[in-house]
Amino acid sequence: MNYDGFFSDAISRLWDERRYRVFADLERVAGRFPRAIWHSPQGPRDIVIWCSNDYLGMGQHPNVIDAMVETATRTGTGAGGTRNISGTNHPLVELERELADLHAKEAALVFTSGYVSNDTGISTIARLIPNCLILSDAMNHNSMIEGIRHAGSERKIWRHNDVDHLETLLQAVRPDRPKLIIFESLYSMDGDVAPIRRICDLSERYGAMTYLDEVHAVGMYGPRGAGIAARDGVMDRIDVIEGTLAKAFGCLGGYIAGSAPLIDAVRSYAPGFIFTTALPPAICAAATAAIRHLKSSQWERERHQHRAARVKSVLSAASLPIMPSDTHIVPVVVGDPKRCKAASDLLLSEHRIYIQPINYPTVPKGTERLRITPTPCHDDVMIDQLAEALLDVWDRLELTLKDGAIAGE
Amino acid sequence: MNYDGFFSDAISRLWDERRYRVFADLERVAGRFPRAIWHSPQGPRDIVIWCSNDYLGMGQHPNVIDAMVETATRTGTGAGGTRNISGTNHPLVELERELADLHAKEAALVFTSGYVSNDTGISTIARLIPNCLILSDAMNHNSMIEGIRHAGSERKIWRHNDVDHLETLLQAVRPDRPKLIIFESLYSMDGDVAPIRRICDLSERYGAMTYLDEVHAVGMYGPRGAGIAARDGVMDRIDVIEGTLAKAFGCLGGYIAGSAPLIDAVRSYAPGFIFTTALPPAICAAATAAIRHLKSSQWERERHQHRAARVKSVLSAASLPIMPSDTHIVPVVVGDPKRCKAASDLLLSEHRIYIQPINYPTVPKGTERLRITPTPCHDDVMIDQLAEALLDVWDRLELTLKDGAIAGE
Ligand SMILES: Cc1ncc(COP(=O)(O)O)c(C=O)c1O
Ligand SMILES: Cc1ncc(COP(=O)(O)O)c(C=O)c1O
Repeated sequence: MNYDGFFSDAISRLWDERRYRVFADLERVAGRFPRAIWHSPQGPRDIVIWCSNDYLGMGQHPNVIDAMVETATRTGTGAGGTRNISGTNHPLVELERELADLHAKEAALVFTSGYVSNDTGISTIARLIPNCLILSDAMNHNSMIEGIRHAGSERKIWRHNDVDHLETLLQAVRPDRPKLIIFESLYSMDGDVAPIRRICDLSERYGAMTYLDEVHAVGMYGPRGAGIAARDGVMDRIDVIEGTLAKAFGCLGGYIAGSAPLIDAVRSYAPGFIFTTALPPAICAAATAAIRHLKSSQWERERHQHRAARVKSVLSAASLPIMPSDTHIVPVVVGDPKRCKAASDLLLSEHRIYIQPINYPTVPKGTERLRITPTPCHDDVMIDQLAEALLDVWDRLELTLKDGAIAGE
Repeated sequence: MNYDGFFSDAISRLWDERRYRVFADLERVAGRFPRAIWHSPQGPRDIVIWCSNDYLGMGQHPNVIDAMVETATRTGTGAGGTRNISGTNHPLVELERELADLHAKEAALVFTSGYVSNDTGISTIARLIPNCLILSDAMNHNSMIEGIRHAGSERKIWRHNDVDHLETLLQAVRPDRPKLIIFESLYSMDGDVAPIRRICDLSERYGAMTYLDEVHAVGMYGPRGAGIAARDGVMDRIDVIEGTLAKAFGCLGGYIAGSAPLIDAVRSYAPGFIFTTALPPAICAAATAAIRHLKSSQWERERHQHRAARVKSVLSAASLPIMPSDTHIVPVVVGDPKRCKAASDLLLSEHRIYIQPINYPTVPKGTERLRITPTPCHDDVMIDQLAEALLDVWDRLELTLKDGAIAGE
C-alpha cells in the first residue's frame, strides 16, 4: 500500500488551493527586536518583523530574560515529570498564584500552551456538567472549537459578537439546563472586541456560565494587564478566564483562572493536563517576571497603543486599505491568496520587512490580508518605511487602495 | 444555577475512590540532582527524588543548561508566534534536522509536547488516510488514545504486546484497506518492551503502516540514543517514530519523524501544530544540545543501566516485591491505593525520599505501586538508603514482602 501517496495528495490539494505554507526561518536578537535575522535560502538577512505576537516585546525584557537564565542556571532546563509525578516545580506554583491574583480569582492552572488550556480545559469543564449546552461565538479560535468538539456536548453557534442572536438561543433553552457561553475578548484576525458586559448581563439573566479567552488581551489591556474584561470592569462576572503566556508575556504556556472547585476539578480530570510533562521552571519564572512587570508598569501598554494608532494613521494617510479596528491589530486587506502571498514575498525580499500572509482557513476567502502588529519597539522610522514599502508593493501588484483606485494606475 | 456544585461533586468522587492527588512542590538544584528541595507545608526540606522522568539527569547537564542560557540571552525568551506567523526560529529548524538525523528519517516535526504530538499527529495522519483502520495496543498511553479518538476512524484494540492477537485482527481486514498499527516501544508503568521486530513483520505482511511511541526510550537505548527500535535494528521498518524532548533529553516538547510527504502533510493539516505558539528558541537549543551529546556519549546510557540493575538487585535482596522488568523502570507493588499513598507519604516525611504513588487510573486497580526510576546520578549510598527506607515503610504499614511474608511479622 502506498501510504505516502495519501500524504502527497493532501499536499497537492494545498498547492491547488494556493494554501501551501512556507515558514520563514527567523532568529531574533535580544535587545534589537523587532529587528531579526532571516535565514533565507540565500543566506542570513537583516529584517524587521511586523507580525509578531510578542506584542509588547517582553520576550527581550531584561527582567524576563534574567529570570529565565537565573532559573535555568540554578535548577536546570526541564521539569522532569508530569505535574503529579515529580514535575510540579516551585516557580510553577508561584506562577499559578500570580495568575490567580492577576485575574482576582480563587485559583489558576497552567498548561503547556494556550491551545491545550482551551482544548482540554473546555472539554473537561463541559463533561463535568451534566447535559451541558455550549453556546459558542462563530469566530472562536480553533483551540476552543476543538475543546468544544472533544466535550461531546450539544453546541449552538451564535453569530459573531451578536448578543441578540445569543439571547434568542438562550431563550430557547429550558431555564434549568446548564449552559456554557464560550467567547473571546479580542478576536485576533480582525482586532475587534466582544461586548463582554452585555454577554455577562445575558449569562446572569439566563443562568449560564461564561468562559472567556483573553489570549490576545492579557498583558495589554486593563490597569494591571489582566485583559479587556478587567478594563471594562466586568472581570468578576466571568467564571473562567483563559490566557496565554506566549504572546504579550513573551514566553510559553497557557492557563485558566476561576473558582477553587473548578480549577481543582480540571486539575484532577483533564487528560491534556494530567498526562504531559510540566512546564520547565525557567519558563515559569520568566512568565512570572513578565506578569509582575506588567502589573505595575503602564509604559508598554501606553506606547503599544500609541504605536498602533500611529501605524493606522500613517497607513491610512497613504490610502492603504486597513480594516477598522479598536485595538492594536492592524489588518491590511489584499483579498486574494496568491497576491497576498506575493505581497508578503516582495516585502521580505525587496524591503526586508516580514509580514506573513494570512489566507484561508485562518480568515474567510476574499479577506486575505497582511496582519500588522505594531509593538512598543517599532519606531517612527520603521513605521514610515513600512508605509513606503507597502505602497511600492501595492503598486507593483496593482492592488486596490482605499478609495478604490488601483495602485500604480 | 450552582455550577461549582458540579465541580465539588467531581472532587468528592475522587476522595471517595482514594484518587485525589496532591502535587509535591519541588525545587531542583542543578548539579545536585537527584537531590532537591521539597517545599512542604512546614517549610523547605532536602529530599532525594526517585521518580523523575529526567531519566539521565540531562536537565542539569552543563551543555544543556549552557545552550538554554546562551540562547535566551542572545535571542530572548519566547518564539513570539505560531510556526507560520513569525514563530519558526532557527534553533527549532536545527532541532528538527537533528531529530530527522537521529531517527534516520527524511524529516521531523516538533510540537509543544509529546502529548500534543500524539494527539494531533495520530488524528491528522489517520484522517488523511481514507477509510483507515487503526489497530491500537491495549496499554497505549492516554495521549495516543485521545489521538485515536479524535481521528474518528474505526479502531480495534489488540491485547497488550500480543502479536498473535494483532495478526488475528489483521487477517480479518480486507487486504486493500489502509491500516495503521499504533504502539509503544517501552511501556512506562511496567517497564516492559514491545516485540517490535515481529510487529514489523506483520505490518509488512499485511500492508499496514506503523506508528511507534518511543517516549520512554529515546536518549536511553540504541547506539546513538534513538530508542529501542534502533537498538533492535528495525528503526528503518517503522513509518513514524514519536518521541519527547521532556524525559531523557531533559527539556520540553515532542516530535514525530518520518517520510517527507508525511511530515509535510502533518505540518500543513494538524490543528494542534498550526494554531499554537512555537517552542522557545532556548528550549530548542537545549534539546539539541542534549540529543547531540547523547548521540556520541555512551556513559549516561551505560551507567543508567548499571544503576537500574543495582537498584533491582538491592531491593530484591531485601525481599521487596519488585515487578520484573527488562528496562530502567523499577515498579514496587503495593496493591492498594490507600497504603500506596501512605507509603509515599511516609517515605517523604520520615526518610526524605520522594516517590509518587501510582494509583488507578494510571495503572489497573490492585496493582497500585511505587514506580522507581534510577538515574546515573543516584549513587550507592542513596540506593542502600532507599532499600532501608522501603523496608521500614513496609514494616510500619505491614505490607507484603516478596516471599509472601508480611513485613514486621
Ligand atoms: C484566541 C486564541 N486562543 C488560544 C491560542 C493558543 O495560544 P498558544 O499559542 O499559547 O497555544 C491562540 C493562538 O495561538 C489564539 O489566537
Ligand atoms: C507513552 C507516552 N507518550 C507520550 C507522553 C507525553 O509526553 P510529554 O510529557 O512530552 O507530553 C507520555 C508521558 O508524559 C508517555 O508516557
